[in-house]
Amino acid sequence: MTAEVEASTPLGARNDFGERPAGALKFAQVGQYTFETGGCLPQVELAYETWGTLNAAGDNAVLVAHALTGDTHVAASPSDPAPGWWEGLLGMGKPIDPEKHFVVAPAMVGGCYGSTGPASPDSAGIPWGSRFPFVTIRDAVHLEARLAAQLGITSFLAVVGGSMGGARALEWAATYPDMVRGMGIFSCGAASTAEQIAFGQAQVQAIRNDPHYRGGDYYDGPGPQDGLALARRIAHITYRTETELSARFGRTAQPGEDPFGAPQRRNGRYQVESYLDHQAKKLLQRFDPNAYLGLAEALMSHDVGRGRGGVAQALAQVTATPFLAAVDTDRLYFPEQSQQIADLLPGDAGVHTITSPIGHDGFLTSPDQLGAQMRETLGL
Amino acid sequence: MTAEVEASTPLGARNDFGERPAGALKFAQVGQYTFETGGCLPQVELAYETWGTLNAAGDNAVLVAHALTGDTHVAASPSDPAPGWWEGLLGMGKPIDPEKHFVVAPAMVGGCYGSTGPASPDSAGIPWGSRFPFVTIRDAVHLEARLAAQLGITSFLAVVGGSMGGARALEWAATYPDMVRGMGIFSCGAASTAEQIAFGQAQVQAIRNDPHYRGGDYYDGPGPQDGLALARRIAHITYRTETELSARFGRTAQPGEDPFGAPQRRNGRYQVESYLDHQAKKLLQRFDPNAYLGLAEALMSHDVGRGRGGVAQALAQVTATPFLAAVDTDRLYFPEQSQQIADLLPGDAGVHTITSPIGHDGFLTSPDQLGAQMRETLGL
Repeated sequence: MTAEVEASTPLGARNDFGERPAGALKFAQVGQYTFETGGCLPQVELAYETWGTLNAAGDNAVLVAHALTGDTHVAASPSDPAPGWWEGLLGMGKPIDPEKHFVVAPAMVGGCYGSTGPASPDSAGIPWGSRFPFVTIRDAVHLEARLAAQLGITSFLAVVGGSMGGARALEWAATYPDMVRGMGIFSCGAASTAEQIAFGQAQVQAIRNDPHYRGGDYYDGPGPQDGLALARRIAHITYRTETELSARFGRTAQPGEDPFGAPQRRNGRYQVESYLDHQAKKLLQRFDPNAYLGLAEALMSHDVGRGRGGVAQALAQVTATPFLAAVDTDRLYFPEQSQQIADLLPGDAGVHTITSPIGHDGFLTSPDQLGAQMRETLGL
Repeated sequence: MTAEVEASTPLGARNDFGERPAGALKFAQVGQYTFETGGCLPQVELAYETWGTLNAAGDNAVLVAHALTGDTHVAASPSDPAPGWWEGLLGMGKPIDPEKHFVVAPAMVGGCYGSTGPASPDSAGIPWGSRFPFVTIRDAVHLEARLAAQLGITSFLAVVGGSMGGARALEWAATYPDMVRGMGIFSCGAASTAEQIAFGQAQVQAIRNDPHYRGGDYYDGPGPQDGLALARRIAHITYRTETELSARFGRTAQPGEDPFGAPQRRNGRYQVESYLDHQAKKLLQRFDPNAYLGLAEALMSHDVGRGRGGVAQALAQVTATPFLAAVDTDRLYFPEQSQQIADLLPGDAGVHTITSPIGHDGFLTSPDQLGAQMRETLGL
């Protein structure tokens, strides 16, 4: 039933910006797909990683959905022992346990971690670029459902994720209620808010403004690196908090630099600028600007109520057991937005509070505050 | 004693992006000036507006300092009856009253509202552009002190301003204690914080990334309009609140547009995007990108404690009667930052709370919540 394809072709040709070890990723052809807004791809390939073994009933599966710039490498595995981005939640003895669960982490369509995305070649070998369809969170879920079917999964014990991963998890529960018995939604609301859209637009515009962007068809040239770097700077500020930035950096100058020293313009940076430059540079080395732009727009499109009579009606139909969590200092995905989900779901769902000074990123950095409660609530 | 120069030359040549009526602005030559970080201009001209008449003692003066993109037009006047940006605070019967006070509103050096700035011509008629010195808040105050002397002002009853204007007011009180008897500081702290610097850097970078920026020497070409527009979008989000944007726009599409309708990319906008585009477009029509960049960096440099043994020591020396106010929902200049000033000033200064759902911009839009208290505290 599975249609796994080993990574026999060069990873670059498969749109993998992560430069992973051979064999780290598995691939599935999930067929032709017409996207929600009308675009079509003749063949979509999804890259994914797995941990553990699917049971005979096909119902011990857990899907972990990555955030905007995340990838499939949730945790170390035999084929890629490098640490992943959610080690505290996935591993032997952890809440999501390969000894008990069959864990699947797909790379979202439209991204750059192995699944078909804007950098992927069409049948003529030309990157899709500007011709890549507009992707929604719902599109991603429909395609991941095909992958789940190919893998023989009959239902998920849980679908979990934070931020954009939380949007996917919620959309999974609303779109395939029969397939999702539990959902873990961290630091994400039922629909992207005006402010999230506004910050998203700024990031998208930063990339589009870059002269190297060229409408998205830049793969024969240098690419909109400055634009992506600026997008990342903007995003990163919103992922942290004023309190943390003040405590870590204050107004200190970057060592060896003087943000004050030039008679014309500044020739040095404050430490916080250097920090954001560093965050930006790290992303440039691993991310495709088109993928960033497309996934940011997908996240702006997030609305579990779309076509379902609104958020309240959509959430009232959800049958999955919910585990909701929010970071108390998150100023991009406010805890109130998680509470709104809780209020509109059937039953008495609460919102688990993650206490962290750093804001949104707290869902990634504080797995110890999630694990036990998630395990208990979702029966993992 | 005064060295006023009527606007006899075309306003464009004087770096006035506001396209004001003839006679709206007065001009003073305040001489050669060496900036804090070493740059020098052979002659600085300050543009300003005034209301009321200076008394014989020269001590009924009030200085109103504008914010980042503000100008000299605080309120309507005989020479320019158009409404200004702080009508509620300045006018007959208002807290700042031309019947009693001699009000001066200078355009900050380095800006684009009449005072010498990057678009101003050097002696050869070439715009300063990239050669314009790096400006600090303190530089602006030193130059404004020269203007005050030329005008015959012996001391200010009050120096007031919000946001960057608040930074100037505080710096005035710390730099010229003998000249400043009262200060009104709204929505501004003692020094720009890490987060304010971070958002500032993003805006500066947005302009620098624009291919039309050309290092700042773009006056013979189209100019970095897209960059400035993006800078304004970023800034404007931080000037408002999530709550307000949600209430006003939610996820609604801009009428006649579909942010969801394109098979490739989006071809329409959400209403909040259109709103930010509108804010950006309005600024493009009235602001010089170099001025925006320079003033943003000046604001990043704001630190009343610089060279004075730190913020605490600087504030302990301030003798002006303080009136401090902050907007309860401000998420860029947090009320805590105003409270820090209050705590470090001599005496028992409090912070007056402006209640507004809109955040930082509330200091501009809610003058009714400032006026009576400011009048009483500062003895206006």
